[in-house]
Amino acid sequence: MDSKQFKAAATSAIDEIVNYYDTIENRPVLSSVEPGYLKRILPDGPPQDGEPWADIQKDIETKIMPGLTHWQSPNFMAFFPASSTFPGMLGELYSAAFTAPAFNWICSPAVTELETVVLDWLAKLFNLPECYLSTTHGGGVIQGSASEAVVTVMVAARDKYLRETTAHLSGLELENALAHKRSTMVALGSEAAHSSTQKAAQIAGVRYRSVPVSKENNFSMTGADLEKVLEQCKAQGLEPFFLTATLGSTSTCAVDDFGSMVPTLAKHAPLNQPGEIWVHVDAAYAGAALICPEFQHLTTSFEHFHSFNTNMHKWLLTNFDASCLYVKKRKDLIDALSILPSYLRNEFSESGLVTDYRDWQIPLGRRFRSLKIWFVLRTYGVNGLQAHIRKHVHLGEIFAGLIKTRGDLFEIVTGPTFALTVFNIVPKVANKAEQDRLTKEVYELVNKRGEIYITSSVVSGVYVIRVVSANPLAEEKNVRRAFEILVETAEELRDGKLSSMTTISGNGVLNGSKDAN
Amino acid sequence: MDSKQFKAAATSAIDEIVNYYDTIENRPVLSSVEPGYLKRILPDGPPQDGEPWADIQKDIETKIMPGLTHWQSPNFMAFFPASSTFPGMLGELYSAAFTAPAFNWICSPAVTELETVVLDWLAKLFNLPECYLSTTHGGGVIQGSASEAVVTVMVAARDKYLRETTAHLSGLELENALAHKRSTMVALGSEAAHSSTQKAAQIAGVRYRSVPVSKENNFSMTGADLEKVLEQCKAQGLEPFFLTATLGSTSTCAVDDFGSMVPTLAKHAPLNQPGEIWVHVDAAYAGAALICPEFQHLTTSFEHFHSFNTNMHKWLLTNFDASCLYVKKRKDLIDALSILPSYLRNEFSESGLVTDYRDWQIPLGRRFRSLKIWFVLRTYGVNGLQAHIRKHVHLGEIFAGLIKTRGDLFEIVTGPTFALTVFNIVPKVANKAEQDRLTKEVYELVNKRGEIYITSSVVSGVYVIRVVSANPLAEEKNVRRAFEILVETAEELRDGKLSSMTTISGNGVLNGSKDAN
Repeated sequence: MDSKQFKAAATSAIDEIVNYYDTIENRPVLSSVEPGYLKRILPDGPPQDGEPWADIQKDIETKIMPGLTHWQSPNFMAFFPASSTFPGMLGELYSAAFTAPAFNWICSPAVTELETVVLDWLAKLFNLPECYLSTTHGGGVIQGSASEAVVTVMVAARDKYLRETTAHLSGLELENALAHKRSTMVALGSEAAHSSTQKAAQIAGVRYRSVPVSKENNFSMTGADLEKVLEQCKAQGLEPFFLTATLGSTSTCAVDDFGSMVPTLAKHAPLNQPGEIWVHVDAAYAGAALICPEFQHLTTSFEHFHSFNTNMHKWLLTNFDASCLYVKKRKDLIDALSILPSYLRNEFSESGLVTDYRDWQIPLGRRFRSLKIWFVLRTYGVNGLQAHIRKHVHLGEIFAGLIKTRGDLFEIVTGPTFALTVFNIVPKVANKAEQDRLTKEVYELVNKRGEIYITSSVVSGVYVIRVVSANPLAEEKNVRRAFEILVETAEELRDGKLSSMTTISGNGVLNGSKDAN
Repeated sequence: MDSKQFKAAATSAIDEIVNYYDTIENRPVLSSVEPGYLKRILPDGPPQDGEPWADIQKDIETKIMPGLTHWQSPNFMAFFPASSTFPGMLGELYSAAFTAPAFNWICSPAVTELETVVLDWLAKLFNLPECYLSTTHGGGVIQGSASEAVVTVMVAARDKYLRETTAHLSGLELENALAHKRSTMVALGSEAAHSSTQKAAQIAGVRYRSVPVSKENNFSMTGADLEKVLEQCKAQGLEPFFLTATLGSTSTCAVDDFGSMVPTLAKHAPLNQPGEIWVHVDAAYAGAALICPEFQHLTTSFEHFHSFNTNMHKWLLTNFDASCLYVKKRKDLIDALSILPSYLRNEFSESGLVTDYRDWQIPLGRRFRSLKIWFVLRTYGVNGLQAHIRKHVHLGEIFAGLIKTRGDLFEIVTGPTFALTVFNIVPKVANKAEQDRLTKEVYELVNKRGEIYITSSVVSGVYVIRVVSANPLAEEKNVRRAFEILVETAEELRDGKLSSMTTISGNGVLNGSKDAN
C-alpha cells in the first residue's frame, strides 16, 4: 500500500467510520452471532498474494460488524461506558504513524514528556493533592488498564513492605523472615472492590481477603469495616500490606468512606513508617467526575493514601487504552520495577534528568498514548469535559426519577450515583427468591431483544439490574426509551401483559428480536 | 468535533502522515531536544474552552516532531525495528472507532474470534507445532509486549509448579511446603536472554538466575550450559521452574541450542510431570523470520516447550502493540488468571463454547488488535511478508560484507544474523581496554551527529556496536551510507583523519550536528 493508495483507503475508512457513528443507533447494540461464527466465514489462512484495500474493507461491514457489540451506541447502558471520540481517534492514528516502543526517554523524548505534562494537567483537574504531581516526589503514568495499574502498585507495595520491615535483619535471619512474610502477606479490598485487586494478588503471589460491606452504608467500606478485618488478620498471623479503596464500585458506584479509614490505618501502622498499608484508590470509572468541582471534596483524604487511578477510556472521551495511574512516591515503583541491562543504558537516563517510564510499569515498550489525551483535552476544553460529565449525571437522575414513578414495579437499590442506577423488580407477592428470579428474567429478556444492552450484578446476595447511560452519544430520549422497555418487559413477565415488543418482535420486523436461533 | 469537522481533520492528518513518511529520511533520526523541552513550551493546563483542530494540528510539527526519534526512518538502525505500515494504521483507526474493552466474548464477539483466527493463521505460518493451535489444547493471544507475555506465562508456570508439586499434601504441611517453595523457586534465562525475564521474576516474586553462555558457542545457551546451572540450583536447594529460551537475543540475535536443551530438561524432570520446567521461547524479534521456510527448522523442538512469543510489532509490519503469545495448554493460563465476579458472568462464557481472553492475560480489558494484524496479513500476503524478511536479511549480509572489507578497522563479533551485525573497532595497537574505549567513542559520535541511529551493547565483557537495518523503508543505499559513516568516524577517532562530517558539521549546515548545546 503506497502513499496514494493509503490516502484513498484512509478516506474511505474515515467515511465508513463517520457513517458508522451517524447511524450507530439503528444497529442492534448487542451482537447476536453464535460462537464460532467468524471462523466459519473466513479462509483457513491469509492470501498468498496481497489483496487490494477495497476487498479488505468490504469484509468489515459483512464479516466484522455482525460480531460487534456497539459500545458507542446510545443504547449501550451496560458495564461502564468505554468512550471513543473523533479527537481520540486522531491521536491513535498519529500514535500508530509515530510508532516507537518508547521505553527510554531518548527513544522518543516527546512520548515521555507529553505524558508527564498531560498527567500533571489531569492531576490538577482531578484536584489530587500536590504530592501526586511530577514536580514533587510523585507523578502519573499511563497504563493500559486499571487492572495493570493495580498489579503495578501492588508489586511496588509488596517489595516496599518486605524491604522496610526486614531492614534490620541480615543473612539467614533475613532469608527466613522474607520467606515467612511472603506467605503471610495479604492484600485487602472491600467486597465491592473490583476483581482486579484479587487478580493482582494472584499475580503478585500474595493472599487476598475482602472486607465485608453493608447495604446500610450503601456498600461503602468504613473505617470500622476495615478495622474488623485488620484485627482478624492480626489474630491469624497475617500481614496486611495493601488495600484497594474504591471511588465508584463496579456494581453500584459506591464510594468508600475514605475519611473514616485514615485513623484506622494510622492505628495499624503510622503513615510513612515500615509496615504501613499501601492504599490504592481505584476510581477507574467515577474518577472522571473529579474534574467537576462539586465532586472534588472526595479527594480530601488522598494525601494519606499512596496511589490513585482513573481511566480516561471509561468516562472521559478517550478511546481505550488510557488509564491514568498516579503515585505519591515514584521511587517505590522504580525500586520494584527497574532493571538496567547494558543495551538500555544511555547518558540521558544516567543523568537523572529524564523519566524512563518503563520503570513505572510492567511492560518495557510503550505507545504514544498521551497524544490522544492531549487532543481530547484541547478539543473539549475544561468546560466541555465538565459539561460531558454533568450531562450524564443528569441523565442518571432522569432515569432514576422515572424508575421511582413506578414504585409498584421497581425498587431502587442504590443510585443514581455517577449516572448509574441499580434496581430490581418488585414481585407480585413479596418474596426474595421470586424477586431475584423475576429481576434476572427481565434482565435477560431485555438483552435478548437487544434494543438496549444492560448488565446485572449481585449485591449483598440480591440480584440487581444496573443501568448506566454515559457514553458520548447518550441523550435523554435514550434513557426514556430504556425506561419504557424495562416497564413493558417487567409488566409482561410479572403480569402477563402483552407488550408492544412482544408483538413487534413476533413479526420479526422491528426492534430486532435478538434470538440467534 | 462533529462528523464534518472530523472528516476535514482526518483528511488533514492523513496528508500530514503521508508527507511525514515520504520525507522522513530527511529528518534527523534521533531527537536532539534537551530534557524538559516540552514543558517549557506548553501551557500549564488545558484550555478552558475547546480549540479547533487546526490549532492543535499545527503543534504536532512545531512542538512534538522535534521531540520524536524517528523509528520509521531508514536511518534508524538501533535496537530492533518497530515497524509501522499504512494497513496497520487503518487497523488502529477502526479499532479506536469500535472501542470496546472486550473482556468477555459477548462484549464484542468479533474481537475474540478474529484474534483466534489470525493467531491460528500465524501459528501455521511460523511452523509452530500443532499443539500451539486453538484447535488443540493450546492457542494464541495478543499481548501488549513480549515483557507482558513473559510475566503472564511465568505466573502460570509458578502456580502450576506449586499446585503440581504439592498435590499430595494438605493442611499445615501444604502451607509450609508452599511457603518454602515460594522462597526457593527460581526462574532461569541465559545471560543473553532479554531483561524482561528478570523483571518478570521480580513481579512474580521469585528468584532469578542467569545461565552463562560463551562466545565460542556464539552466545547460544546449550544443554551443557543449562545442566551446570540446574545442578548448582539443586546443590543450593533452589527449585528451577521456568526457563526462557531465546530465538534471537537482544544483543547479538543468538539462538539457543534448543535441541541440546531438551534431554537436559527431561533429565531434570520429565515433560508433563510435576516439577517439569516451563520453557518459554522468546522470539520477540527474530520469530518473524519463521514465516520463511528456510528458518523453520528452528521450531523442531518446540513441542517439548510450553510457550512461544513473537512481536508482529517488531519485524512484521504491524504497529506497536501486537505481541503474539502461544501456549501449549491454555488451561494453565486460565487456572492462574481467572476470576469470575458476578458482573462478568454470562451464558456464553458459562457454555464453555467461547474464549474469554481476559483469563489469558494480566489486564481485564483488551483492544481490537487482531484487526491490524488481519489488515497487514491480507495487504502483504504470505509472499509479501516473506519478501520483507528476506530483503532485510539480505541488507544485513550486504552491511556485514562491507564491514568485512575493512578488517583493518572493524572486527565482526557476531552476524549477520537476522539482519543484525555486531562488531567493534580495531585499535591501532591490540589492547582490550583501548578497543572498548574506541568502540564506545565511535558509537557515541555517530549518534551525536545523528545521521543514523545505532545502539551499543556489552557481550561477554566486550563493548560492541549493533547495526540492524530492518524497518519497512530500509534500502541498500542506507546500509551503504551507514558503512561510510562508520568508516569515516572510526578513521577520524582512531587515525585523526579529517572526515567529511567533521567539516560539514563544523559549518553547522549539513548532516545536522546533533549537539543540542
